[in-house]
Amino acid sequence: MSTTSSGKFRGRIGVIGAGALGALYGVRMARAGSNVHLLARSDYDAVREHGYRIRSWQGDFDLRVPVCTDAQSLGPCDLVLVGMKATENGAFPELLRHTCHESTVVLTLQNGLGNEDAIAAALETLHPGVPARERVLGAVAFLCSTRPEPGLIRHTDHGRIRLAELTGPATERTHQLAQLFIDADFPCEVSDSIGLIRWEKLMWNVPFNGLGVGAGHAHAEAVMRDPELRAVAHRLMMEVRAAANACGAPVPESFIQRMFDATETIGAYRSSMQLDYEAGRPLEVEAILGEPLRRARAAGVDTPTLAMLYAVVRRLDRRRQAGEIE
Amino acid sequence: MSTTSSGKFRGRIGVIGAGALGALYGVRMARAGSNVHLLARSDYDAVREHGYRIRSWQGDFDLRVPVCTDAQSLGPCDLVLVGMKATENGAFPELLRHTCHESTVVLTLQNGLGNEDAIAAALETLHPGVPARERVLGAVAFLCSTRPEPGLIRHTDHGRIRLAELTGPATERTHQLAQLFIDADFPCEVSDSIGLIRWEKLMWNVPFNGLGVGAGHAHAEAVMRDPELRAVAHRLMMEVRAAANACGAPVPESFIQRMFDATETIGAYRSSMQLDYEAGRPLEVEAILGEPLRRARAAGVDTPTLAMLYAVVRRLDRRRQAGEIE
Repeated sequence: MSTTSSGKFRGRIGVIGAGALGALYGVRMARAGSNVHLLARSDYDAVREHGYRIRSWQGDFDLRVPVCTDAQSLGPCDLVLVGMKATENGAFPELLRHTCHESTVVLTLQNGLGNEDAIAAALETLHPGVPARERVLGAVAFLCSTRPEPGLIRHTDHGRIRLAELTGPATERTHQLAQLFIDADFPCEVSDSIGLIRWEKLMWNVPFNGLGVGAGHAHAEAVMRDPELRAVAHRLMMEVRAAANACGAPVPESFIQRMFDATETIGAYRSSMQLDYEAGRPLEVEAILGEPLRRARAAGVDTPTLAMLYAVVRRLDRRRQAGEIE
Repeated sequence: MSTTSSGKFRGRIGVIGAGALGALYGVRMARAGSNVHLLARSDYDAVREHGYRIRSWQGDFDLRVPVCTDAQSLGPCDLVLVGMKATENGAFPELLRHTCHESTVVLTLQNGLGNEDAIAAALETLHPGVPARERVLGAVAFLCSTRPEPGLIRHTDHGRIRLAELTGPATERTHQLAQLFIDADFPCEVSDSIGLIRWEKLMWNVPFNGLGVGAGHAHAEAVMRDPELRAVAHRLMMEVRAAANACGAPVPESFIQRMFDATETIGAYRSSMQLDYEAGRPLEVEAILGEPLRRARAAGVDTPTLAMLYAVVRRLDRRRQAGEIE
């Protein structure tokens, strides 16, 4: 990695998938002094003209940052931050081909399971013989942000990051990358287990993203207040925990109560999957539900509630994308 | 009961809930010579003018039969056939008050669990001290019929009945009542176990009625052709069977394969619950999903897939009835 003698990361950073999540982290890193370039699509014209307008609970600011409209113009980076939806992972080969040299590190901020593997597979093909998985990190973002219009990011709450290497415990590099987030005013915890931070995030995401679509647009409060749905959410957490434990992620039993306590006061919060569904966008159904289910099955863990949730949300997503339901 | 010396039932028969199901059985019994009176609502004017028009795969006919618009005009009967939706069971006290004397027998053709109990409870209140449960029979109808317009019944397939006493094995009375169906050209099997025939019907109704609403309008073929949904249907049958067995209904394991085989060629069949949902009518969610779940829980049987299906369909039904979803 490109670092200074003080250990700070000073390389060229590219953000692919610069939406409400990727742009917020990238632009705040740019404000903190990092060399950040963003791959924008529908935001491009607005950002070229006005820069990004960040409206955050931590403070508002406008900032002009380098943007481009395709990976080729973005060019080789030392660090690629991945912020796009997992539904777009099919674009990795093309995106990484232009943005990664043989020692580029790729850090994904995406939801769910399987993203790091998809990135590593693309890197493997791109640079045969160069260890690929060692160049991948995964981060879990706890963030409420939206992009109400091009170039405008509304950051309403949270922002914390948990970060881990794909291949093992944290290294000096992990801490250097964590410092990028910390310098940008986001709390960032370094973890020794990508599995643990991914599965712990799924403890909430599986029930509340899933039921937000699969149970008739049930936002968090609707789940919490309906005794039958609340019991389903609890069961889902038990199943996800059993799968996590069988997959080597020791999520403690107390984590379930912690998730319920945290959700008790969340109000009518609509998950990203529910928002995607209501906006007619494709759902991260494989990353958030399908891949956890497949890993549970591979580990021999029975997860009937997750299986049903996956089957239902998968069908709703397909029908919605086929234009069969409004 | 009112019978002739030959053992034929000759009493006055009243049909409450004379819809696509109740009217078909009642009118065919009337044609076969029984003394049948129907409680009609939206059909009343059409039937008074033209009689019922039966369009059946077994033969078409028109028949004028006595109809009335309220239970009081229907008056006391010797046999009451119940054909209304289980969602209307709250009307039993009022309906039975006018139509039942102390030896009236009530035979319900409704779907799901709990209907016989609701009838017995109403009879108990109506005639304190007179054994109530002994006056109740349950029947399971395998029938495809619709009522496309007032007075018109379209009977497209099947029609078979399975009949049992609420309180015990079949008696002479059970066979006399079965003969009413047989004389009306419907196959009718007498069973010694109301529990067994109810739970066996639920083996199909739980997955295919439930998923027809809870899995994005998945008709039978949509379930059968989607490997994930098909697995969910299979799991639901396993759970229903486990609950049935724990509740004293020995549904054999082979019944699951039998249900799948029977559904393999059924095509894009939409269950009654799916049709009700699509028409904006209240769903029989408690009779078909809620009561089986409660009995499973009471028997200590874990049915996570059923629990989730119930929670989802219950919410969809409530939102639909509240006008929150189209």
